[in-house]
Amino acid sequence: MYYLMNEFEESKQSKRNPHRDFYNVRKVDTHIHHSACMNQKHLLRYIKYKLKTKPDEQVIFRDGKILTLAQVFESLKLTAYDLSIDTLDMHAHTDSFHRFDKFNLKYNPIGESRLREIFLKTDNFIDGRYLAELTKQVFDDLESSKYQMVELRISIYGRSIHEWDKLAAWIIDNKLYSHNVRWLIQVPRLYDLYKKNGNIKSFLCVMKNLFEPLFEVSLNPKSHPKLHAFLQRVIGFDSVDDESKTERPFHSKKYPSAGEWDSITNPPYSYYLYYLYSNMTTLNHLRLKNNLNTFVLRPHCGEAGDPEHLISAFLTSYGISHGILLRKLPFIQYLYYLDQIGIAMSPLSNNALFLTYDKNPFHNFFKKGLNVSLSTDDPLQFSYTKEPLIEEFSVAAQIYKLSGVDLCELAKNSCLQSGWEANIKKHWLGKSYMDGGVAGNDIEKTNVPDIRMKYREETLKSELQLIEKYNGMTTARE
Amino acid sequence: MYYLMNEFEESKQSKRNPHRDFYNVRKVDTHIHHSACMNQKHLLRYIKYKLKTKPDEQVIFRDGKILTLAQVFESLKLTAYDLSIDTLDMHAHTDSFHRFDKFNLKYNPIGESRLREIFLKTDNFIDGRYLAELTKQVFDDLESSKYQMVELRISIYGRSIHEWDKLAAWIIDNKLYSHNVRWLIQVPRLYDLYKKNGNIKSFLCVMKNLFEPLFEVSLNPKSHPKLHAFLQRVIGFDSVDDESKTERPFHSKKYPSAGEWDSITNPPYSYYLYYLYSNMTTLNHLRLKNNLNTFVLRPHCGEAGDPEHLISAFLTSYGISHGILLRKLPFIQYLYYLDQIGIAMSPLSNNALFLTYDKNPFHNFFKKGLNVSLSTDDPLQFSYTKEPLIEEFSVAAQIYKLSGVDLCELAKNSCLQSGWEANIKKHWLGKSYMDGGVAGNDIEKTNVPDIRMKYREETLKSELQLIEKYNGMTTARE
Repeated sequence: MYYLMNEFEESKQSKRNPHRDFYNVRKVDTHIHHSACMNQKHLLRYIKYKLKTKPDEQVIFRDGKILTLAQVFESLKLTAYDLSIDTLDMHAHTDSFHRFDKFNLKYNPIGESRLREIFLKTDNFIDGRYLAELTKQVFDDLESSKYQMVELRISIYGRSIHEWDKLAAWIIDNKLYSHNVRWLIQVPRLYDLYKKNGNIKSFLCVMKNLFEPLFEVSLNPKSHPKLHAFLQRVIGFDSVDDESKTERPFHSKKYPSAGEWDSITNPPYSYYLYYLYSNMTTLNHLRLKNNLNTFVLRPHCGEAGDPEHLISAFLTSYGISHGILLRKLPFIQYLYYLDQIGIAMSPLSNNALFLTYDKNPFHNFFKKGLNVSLSTDDPLQFSYTKEPLIEEFSVAAQIYKLSGVDLCELAKNSCLQSGWEANIKKHWLGKSYMDGGVAGNDIEKTNVPDIRMKYREETLKSELQLIEKYNGMTTARE
Repeated sequence: MYYLMNEFEESKQSKRNPHRDFYNVRKVDTHIHHSACMNQKHLLRYIKYKLKTKPDEQVIFRDGKILTLAQVFESLKLTAYDLSIDTLDMHAHTDSFHRFDKFNLKYNPIGESRLREIFLKTDNFIDGRYLAELTKQVFDDLESSKYQMVELRISIYGRSIHEWDKLAAWIIDNKLYSHNVRWLIQVPRLYDLYKKNGNIKSFLCVMKNLFEPLFEVSLNPKSHPKLHAFLQRVIGFDSVDDESKTERPFHSKKYPSAGEWDSITNPPYSYYLYYLYSNMTTLNHLRLKNNLNTFVLRPHCGEAGDPEHLISAFLTSYGISHGILLRKLPFIQYLYYLDQIGIAMSPLSNNALFLTYDKNPFHNFFKKGLNVSLSTDDPLQFSYTKEPLIEEFSVAAQIYKLSGVDLCELAKNSCLQSGWEANIKKHWLGKSYMDGGVAGNDIEKTNVPDIRMKYREETLKSELQLIEKYNGMTTARE
């Protein structure tokens, strides 16, 4: 109804708006994994280039021997000429639907973990130099595009206390900074695996490995200078793994605390989220006192699995990735709407893994006014062109028939959801962006007409009033 | 069934195939209009650039005065800074569905025909220099991509006898040749308009204007040297216009011949096709005798309108563009299958104009084994990225879940349908590509496994045998 009545006025306003259009509004890829942030063609070109120019470089230690790149390819019975996208076999389209396990294997080029080890790991025989070079190239492309930003997920496992220093050294030594890039730390929910392998005693060890170095460096930046520098570009935490894994029901009334959790069972999703949240909050208080940047929790949530995931994220998180299960849970969806919790959606990724494109609730959520943005998840697995985020926008625009105004509103949402500093957001969105609604909208920056913002604002306000009227319930999140 | 049984074998064969993958097999954009072959961002950048660097260039004669580019923009009350994609307003997504009339207006940047005149016409005050420069830039992009080709449609109207020489001069003087480009001549079905404006007396005049220069130059290349050179890069004719326009039913038993057709009524689609076909055929005989290249008819057909269109194209044409109406006409569809008539489909264009993406019969046709290819139609109106053809493939791959083998088969189809010279096709597809089937397949060039070709070949053969068995009918086209 709103569309029918205001379509012309909207497009008139945005046409009258000089200079700005979908291509030169800022857009943030709010959900993208670092080790899959290049497309296949890019990775393939890089591997071939290395094999041609530096075949004799020693790259991996395996079965008691140090192998050169040429020897690795000999052992795989492949030459540079042989390599193709088909050989890499990292596209996930047909064979991984509803099979997250198969999808994870797609991270291995040619199905070979040794190539993943050499090219897509930060901590390997060559100190992650290849991945650093690849990352630099992705950064260069982003910087030349100017209006595209990414929030890259990179892993800290919590298996050892040294992970943070190693990762920070890799970032800093390779000078992996860019105005177009911020980092989120993804924590895989793999306690059971570490326990089985004897890396740790209890769940507390994982949390200690994750947070102890952060407290140390927040108390005394000089204790880990590289980590201190890196953390200034980190904006939060993500929690990742296959949500569709069944969680064993827990029958005791009280969950054991982290130190007591020493069985081989993996804790449930909500347990992970609680511990991440509570440690992060304490850490944030400390950092705020010391004038350091703070973090937010933005877990993968509602891609599959139990509704409880979405409830625990609602209670703990600043925003989530995916959230497609909200379509089946109208009540929780309503809570996400009322609090305008950011949802970074990736319909192309869902299309390959969990939900075909036409069934994706993205467009429904967007029309209702949920705070959604578009993101790519894994360009390496899902993208064909050199501009993965624009490709994601393009497919959505074509299939859902989004207008220019729609696309610009989605771009604006992505900036708001993102973790960039407030002064940069002011430059992107306008000086009073924090006021929200019409007052916070600057069409010259965002290319979103005021009339659209007014509609969103009024709709939300009337829902909030309705709730207050009927039971005086508070809707603010505690 | 075939997929379930052979998917693994197929992907094994294509992985074993060295070097070749979807990115480095040749693909031809089999249906794309020259005046919309750049994307919007490209056109916008070019207009801004001209306005900044050459504002004082005289570009148009209007209302008795010669105007400079700066003056044109003054009259539109716009500056270079003001210009944006929204102002251009050439994207066709929401407001042109089922409205071909509105779509045609989208060819005017900012809805202003004077900008179309200046930037998108070959025959204007500046002799089409701007369009030539833009075209050159598109050619450069194609050449650097190496594996992407286009068959550009460019108009000859048949309003005047001088059109051919003017067009050929524009092409030759601006050196618009490229290894990645061939031309098709699109003839708009606008007799009624020319008649109303007094340009012509009868339909015969249109045909004379269209074909007389071609017979002259084919008899004596020196009579129109530039046209002679241009024609070597022309591969055929296309017939274009809104197929959904109603055709007035014709009650007499006999159609008047072209010379007698002098009413203001537009002849029906089939009448146009017949005259294009018969003149072209005579011309081809002449050209063949004189060792010159010949032409094929590849009209727009079955995008909308009467089933008769598809029947007349079946009787006259080498291939068609669109053909989406075949979904409603199983019998005609079967004829197209049996004769493997090439169908250049553009689901993204259909999605904006006539048929939403999920209803497009493309995937159904492809699975059945019709000879389909993917094409972009109008990147200016439909594309978001810098690689329109890859974008078209990407959306199809994501939505229809096409495998790498599927994509490569589609690319191969596009090469076969295209009008490139046989020796070039040999280089693209393999030496014996003309044999068809497994014998004509060279996986090292096409990346299509023999097992796929065998399946296609056997299925087609069994249908042909079935028909022969039941009534000895000949299925060959006369």
